[in-house]
Amino acid sequence: MNYEAQNARYVARVEEGLRALLPEAQAAWETGKIPEGLCQSMRYSLLAGGKRVRPVLMLATADMLHVDPQEALCPACAIEMIHTYSLIHDDLPGMDDDDLRRGKPTNHKVYGVGAAILAGDGLLNFAFECMLQNALRYPQHLQGHVRAIEAIAVRAGVTGMIAGQSIDLLYEHRQMDEAALSYVHQHKTADLLTAPLLAAACIAEADEHIMHALEAFGHSIGMAFQIQDDLLDIEGDAASLGKATGMDAERGKMTWPALYGVQRAHAMADALWTQAIASLEEFGDRAAYLRAFVQNLRARRA
Amino acid sequence: MNYEAQNARYVARVEEGLRALLPEAQAAWETGKIPEGLCQSMRYSLLAGGKRVRPVLMLATADMLHVDPQEALCPACAIEMIHTYSLIHDDLPGMDDDDLRRGKPTNHKVYGVGAAILAGDGLLNFAFECMLQNALRYPQHLQGHVRAIEAIAVRAGVTGMIAGQSIDLLYEHRQMDEAALSYVHQHKTADLLTAPLLAAACIAEADEHIMHALEAFGHSIGMAFQIQDDLLDIEGDAASLGKATGMDAERGKMTWPALYGVQRAHAMADALWTQAIASLEEFGDRAAYLRAFVQNLRARRA
Repeated sequence: MNYEAQNARYVARVEEGLRALLPEAQAAWETGKIPEGLCQSMRYSLLAGGKRVRPVLMLATADMLHVDPQEALCPACAIEMIHTYSLIHDDLPGMDDDDLRRGKPTNHKVYGVGAAILAGDGLLNFAFECMLQNALRYPQHLQGHVRAIEAIAVRAGVTGMIAGQSIDLLYEHRQMDEAALSYVHQHKTADLLTAPLLAAACIAEADEHIMHALEAFGHSIGMAFQIQDDLLDIEGDAASLGKATGMDAERGKMTWPALYGVQRAHAMADALWTQAIASLEEFGDRAAYLRAFVQNLRARRA
Repeated sequence: MNYEAQNARYVARVEEGLRALLPEAQAAWETGKIPEGLCQSMRYSLLAGGKRVRPVLMLATADMLHVDPQEALCPACAIEMIHTYSLIHDDLPGMDDDDLRRGKPTNHKVYGVGAAILAGDGLLNFAFECMLQNALRYPQHLQGHVRAIEAIAVRAGVTGMIAGQSIDLLYEHRQMDEAALSYVHQHKTADLLTAPLLAAACIAEADEHIMHALEAFGHSIGMAFQIQDDLLDIEGDAASLGKATGMDAERGKMTWPALYGVQRAHAMADALWTQAIASLEEFGDRAAYLRAFVQNLRARRA
């Protein structure tokens, strides 16, 4: 399997799917469609590029579990909408108050705070709207689709991603201990990486055993990704020695290397990547793409 | 039928349902439940009282169409969560920037802007989470439940309530014409009053004819309610003569009496209330509660 080529195919399908679900705002608001300005602000952030990690994971897991790719495309795109709304709201004043995201001005810097709040609300609501309409297109698999949407809702919600954001905000000006840091990364990052895996498994009507394996896989890559992120921040920063001994100075947030030192953080990430590969064992050759995905993520330098 | 007693019973069921879905934040975040602070901020706004118009409409329509009250309670409560999230986000700086809501400090005044954004996001996501879990409890009525959730998503979403908010925001510093004012009230107000009617009809697997009648009913009461709101604002305000001739001075927003004068606005509201009653004709005696509901709403003085 050529990983790069397969990844490019998945990404292209996601990009096409997103544009089909949220087309250009040609129809003015008078026609009863999405108001033009709202549509533009949603598209600005949704179509700003990125690696599309979450929807690609869903398409790959769907392939692995013999799910019709067409059935999986809409929930895959919806998870990307949920991820995007969370970034728009995270960037707002009162949250992280960021001016830039992926080198472009943040949504509220371009459209204003009010419009950015609505763009985020709109993407979250639209994600469910699209998934529900998709589910109704497959009456013979309706229960699997509803379980998939429910799995996504739980991981995105008040015991999942939003819970992680909430605890992150709570510790804005306080030192996190390991329990808090672990909770935030589990929920803010790992839960939305687990969601696409479980959603594909629900549509496939997979058994509990497969669900647990995928949940373990999602947890491992999510936590490893986050520790690696912290390490890359330090290693990419010449003036970084101070960071390894205390809180991330710039963001005022606790990091894994700050808590444990660089060496132990590296060892923790290594163990998690190994666990991730191990949790794919039962899928045999069909997990070739997901294994390559892990190796690729592990080797990243930025 | 004793309207007041029946209304009190519906409201009590909604209050009980809301508290069952979102219980007190006793379980600390360490147990994996909803983080305590997040739960508190969501409950602060969700349990702040109010007439519970939308969920009561759903319970009453469910009764009218012979839907099991237990099946309808969860989506009814979820619509109230959606209504509540929209108020929290509407009150934020960058939107209406309000300090008070129903005589209490707004959510962001108590918990901060970041926490209020998350409380709103949390309520919207939780609404879908609860509805999906409820749908899965009724496998024999799954399709009807999914269609109900979809109907709610559409009316709450980017061609519904959020569309109305978006156009409202667009005209913040501009004079609205009739088309814009009508669009805003149709979507910002009437759509979320129509949602519970259609949701009950979807669970009942009602035919197109009944859907259309309920859609007409929701539109009429939504628009009438809004025009009446504008009129009550004027009539309740001693220094209000200026308002009737231009934009609502305080909020900088256009109103029906400002556009048409008090007398014509009254006539428009009257016609809409009459239409609302007329659209219930085919339901005969079973619509007694909804008729009384309209009379009660029409007679309100605040």
